Amino acid sequence: MKIIDEAVPNAALSATEMATVFRRVLTSAATGLCCESWSINHQELPLATKSSWSVRKYTLCGGRQQGVDVIEVDNGQMRFIVIPSRGMSVLKVESGDVRLGWDSPVKEVVHPLFINLQSRGGLGWLEGFNECLVRCGLEWAGHPGRDTFRNNVGDEVEMDLTLHGKIGNLPASEVEVHIEAGPPPRIHVRGRVDERMFHGPQLELWTDISTEIGSNSFRVDDQVTNHGARDQEFQIIYHANFGPPLLEAGARFVGAVKQVTPFNAHAARDVNAYDKFAGPQEGFVEQVYCLQPLADQEGQTMIMLQNARADRAVSLAFPVDQLPYVTLWKNLASEAEGYVTGLEPGTGFPATRRLERLAGRVPKLGPQASRRFTLEVAIYADQASVAEADRRIQRIQGEARAETTST
Amino acid sequence: MKIIDEAVPNAALSATEMATVFRRVLTSAATGLCCESWSINHQELPLATKSSWSVRKYTLCGGRQQGVDVIEVDNGQMRFIVIPSRGMSVLKVESGDVRLGWDSPVKEVVHPLFINLQSRGGLGWLEGFNECLVRCGLEWAGHPGRDTFRNNVGDEVEMDLTLHGKIGNLPASEVEVHIEAGPPPRIHVRGRVDERMFHGPQLELWTDISTEIGSNSFRVDDQVTNHGARDQEFQIIYHANFGPPLLEAGARFVGAVKQVTPFNAHAARDVNAYDKFAGPQEGFVEQVYCLQPLADQEGQTMIMLQNARADRAVSLAFPVDQLPYVTLWKNLASEAEGYVTGLEPGTGFPATRRLERLAGRVPKLGPQASRRFTLEVAIYADQASVAEADRRIQRIQGEARAETTST
Amino acid sequence: MKIIDEAVPNAALSATEMATVFRRVLTSAATGLCCESWSINHQELPLATKSSWSVRKYTLCGGRQQGVDVIEVDNGQMRFIVIPSRGMSVLKVESGDVRLGWDSPVKEVVHPLFINLQSRGGLGWLEGFNECLVRCGLEWAGHPGRDTFRNNVGDEVEMDLTLHGKIGNLPASEVEVHIEAGPPPRIHVRGRVDERMFHGPQLELWTDISTEIGSNSFRVDDQVTNHGARDQEFQIIYHANFGPPLLEAGARFVGAVKQVTPFNAHAARDVNAYDKFAGPQEGFVEQVYCLQPLADQEGQTMIMLQNARADRAVSLAFPVDQLPYVTLWKNLASEAEGYVTGLEPGTGFPATRRLERLAGRVPKLGPQASRRFTLEVAIYADQASVAEADRRIQRIQGEARAETTST
Repeated sequence: MKIIDEAVPNAALSATEMATVFRRVLTSAATGLCCESWSINHQELPLATKSSWSVRKYTLCGGRQQGVDVIEVDNGQMRFIVIPSRGMSVLKVESGDVRLGWDSPVKEVVHPLFINLQSRGGLGWLEGFNECLVRCGLEWAGHPGRDTFRNNVGDEVEMDLTLHGKIGNLPASEVEVHIEAGPPPRIHVRGRVDERMFHGPQLELWTDISTEIGSNSFRVDDQVTNHGARDQEFQIIYHANFGPPLLEAGARFVGAVKQVTPFNAHAARDVNAYDKFAGPQEGFVEQVYCLQPLADQEGQTMIMLQNARADRAVSLAFPVDQLPYVTLWKNLASEAEGYVTGLEPGTGFPATRRLERLAGRVPKLGPQASRRFTLEVAIYADQASVAEADRRIQRIQGEARAETTST
Repeated sequence: MKIIDEAVPNAALSATEMATVFRRVLTSAATGLCCESWSINHQELPLATKSSWSVRKYTLCGGRQQGVDVIEVDNGQMRFIVIPSRGMSVLKVESGDVRLGWDSPVKEVVHPLFINLQSRGGLGWLEGFNECLVRCGLEWAGHPGRDTFRNNVGDEVEMDLTLHGKIGNLPASEVEVHIEAGPPPRIHVRGRVDERMFHGPQLELWTDISTEIGSNSFRVDDQVTNHGARDQEFQIIYHANFGPPLLEAGARFVGAVKQVTPFNAHAARDVNAYDKFAGPQEGFVEQVYCLQPLADQEGQTMIMLQNARADRAVSLAFPVDQLPYVTLWKNLASEAEGYVTGLEPGTGFPATRRLERLAGRVPKLGPQASRRFTLEVAIYADQASVAEADRRIQRIQGEARAETTST
Repeated sequence: MKIIDEAVPNAALSATEMATVFRRVLTSAATGLCCESWSINHQELPLATKSSWSVRKYTLCGGRQQGVDVIEVDNGQMRFIVIPSRGMSVLKVESGDVRLGWDSPVKEVVHPLFINLQSRGGLGWLEGFNECLVRCGLEWAGHPGRDTFRNNVGDEVEMDLTLHGKIGNLPASEVEVHIEAGPPPRIHVRGRVDERMFHGPQLELWTDISTEIGSNSFRVDDQVTNHGARDQEFQIIYHANFGPPLLEAGARFVGAVKQVTPFNAHAARDVNAYDKFAGPQEGFVEQVYCLQPLADQEGQTMIMLQNARADRAVSLAFPVDQLPYVTLWKNLASEAEGYVTGLEPGTGFPATRRLERLAGRVPKLGPQASRRFTLEVAIYADQASVAEADRRIQRIQGEARAETTST
């Protein structure tokens, strides 16, 4: 069976030979293709599965979300929404009674055109922040701050970096849906986001967000390429955010960790309980912990957020050579303010780039060089599977003890 | 007779029981509804009136007004245009030979996406300013200036406030038309504008702009709500702007006023003639007077701009407990520069927020608390009705004398 | 024969009496007219020519070019693309094996809405820069820098000017296609771009970009008008940019020049070879030369870029009383970084406005006054025609010697 809806002009992200039975380009700046709405489902494309899956693309309207493209993937077990207009972020994930994501004060899926990253002293990013998974990066990824760069006349001058960089507020230039026949059959949403300018970075992100039909997990497979002629600094942090129902009083962070460093004095006060969560508290000021994860023999690590009864959880698994640092962001404020925690694997921590560079945590990409980042996100819906995930993490931890250091 | 075109999902602004015969949602971010164009008129919906009324929604295009939604209301006597894309501002009002509004150098109805509020040292708001009635606010409403705020890590840091705040450059998320059967029958245009962000304000404006069919007046009925978990400062100024034909040499401001304070030394020079208007003068630098209005026994005040012959006028009536301050803005420049005066009821004056706070003029809203603002705008088209409005204002003034204070 | 497709509401740019056989308004903010796509060609409108010409308007989509309007003109010999959404810039020109334009790291035709001119210390303009011909201006045209202006309260305050001004990132409010019957028949694309605000400039650009059917040249005929009530400073620089195939090792700038001033010390080092081009060199830092052109008896000058074999070239001809200065921008970086040279006639050089003013190079327009700028761009495709263009330039140079001055 070989059904191909439409040829894809762009080289796909990976070189893996997939048994692709379906391809569809939804947006292409290169060929001028776009579509307002589109969908496909298990009835239109029979696959070797009994799951009632579907993929649906539509456009939001009203207020600051006018014109935002979203793609809703339902794999029969789990539903998630990808936002091509916002850098291929994942808005939210739902599976049974588990929801990945959070209740931000930002209620709309804000079009990047309505965001001025420079507003509020460089905190404009917060005007659109409500995703379950948003990338920070690529030229810079952390806190606002002044840093130097070479301007058009070759001088080293200063600029104000804005919170968490630009990639989360850039629209995808190419967007495709691929479906693999399998077994197991798998749905892919792919997109290319360009962070390019003259006399500046020429960074490209190709992402492939995929899920096995009927499963309780999805994978983010990203490739960042430097199309410039010279070495290019870059940063990427996967800002994965979870509120209720996983986050609650008694919820716990579980990770194989060799070092815990509080981000500041305010976080240091509670470092001994860095992995425990209290309930919502009005006016809570965020606490941030910088973690260095341990890896298993294959180089993989896993971190997890489990609820109080340890019968619901989400885990993130990734190779530590790709993402050697994890930021744990605890924003245990009232529900109206945004009760949320972030588990954030990255190439560094979210200090401003100048400081990250001093700490040796700002990698470079040579001309035409690429780096790959893969993140497996899984949902657990009963005590047994949470316990099994916990055992996997404890095996990685082994005999090692997490050392707590000062800032 | 009970004709309802479409159910309205949102709670309406007011709890008043209206005999609504018609409701139509034109935009809803919540339900994903939007429409490019739509209209209704007296032939399609018979009401107990002989007036030829209509409501028409359409979308502008070309230049910086591409994609701007407007709603044109004709009540049979008076026509006005509401701009959902620009914070539910009122572009202009026309009745017979009276026009409320002015001839700004800005000729298009500029989409907020084309406005960078931070440009020109925080004066970017002026790039789109041409409305008859625009709200300044909600997090701040006055002049640019540095002020402090709590950032994401809980530190008190500084930011640059921009002229007149953001609400006038935010698109409405929900827009509805309601028609009351009466008698008297009344047309309502309602909209919700959100000024929300993470680690920032969660302010909501619900406005109901309505007019009795066949009348020469309209009412603005606003409700501002704090959806945050903590007390929230806010400011609102109703920037109502009038040029010719009302504004002309010999035109006069009439108000029941207990105190007149010139905004600066330049205004102080002419404080004795603060209520009189000269004709257009090239290069005129604006003069601003801060007024404290008196109220009648019901707590209402009224201010008026009348033309030289006192046979055409516009009045604004409002409760002084809602809007205790009035700014009178005289920009008597040449017609090409913008010959205009602003009558601006507000919760404060337009000094930068830091100064307004020192003067005790920055109110707060508790969690889930709301404040209501109602403004009745009336047009007078002959000497008798202008004289009657004048008498009403004189009755409010009574024996009190307007005191002039220094800045 | 008198075929008029549609009446044009706006006064045309010029008062010349054309034998117009066809007029079409494509965008009009004034009348609310817009069209997504449209075309006309030699079969639909027979003209006295055997050339297969066409004009086609369409809208781009995907990534940062979503919603960008472009007009593609094919005169039978030469094709060029005008971008109404980006200030009526010319994206690229193609004729046989000659391409005018360059390969910028910016691959999309970026919608101005995605550009924040203030980003990167005022270098945001570079995020969309990839045109063959883009105007810098109109309130300012050069490098970023602080300068003073009068704010709304009449005070002289400071603002940060951004690189190359706003006109290249403003959408046209009126766009028309006119076709002259001739002989010779000629295609015109006309557009009006407004740089207007309250308490700021009220500058209007009307451009007429036209080409004789079957020819190898096009003409840019611009009129800049001050609609303000007072004298208004303005600046305009025509940033015409050429990469391969014209630009290559051994390519040469040819101009009738009386004075050459390197822009800075880095440019001064190579001033003796200012008119020669090397091949792409990774990390090359731009060199800029400020030229004062000589004129022939009609007041015209001509400048040219020719390839290494002197068998392909482009020339720009213009009156020196309109555009008395030429900036030669050499950015001989690697192809990935943008290997490009700019030949830039202007009312001044691209130093920041404060410095240009000190040098007496910031002209003013009185109230309602206009200035005209005409630029004839021609392509040469063989040795004989390049040599003839060279001879024309040498005749203008005559006995005069180009004097080299220090910065």
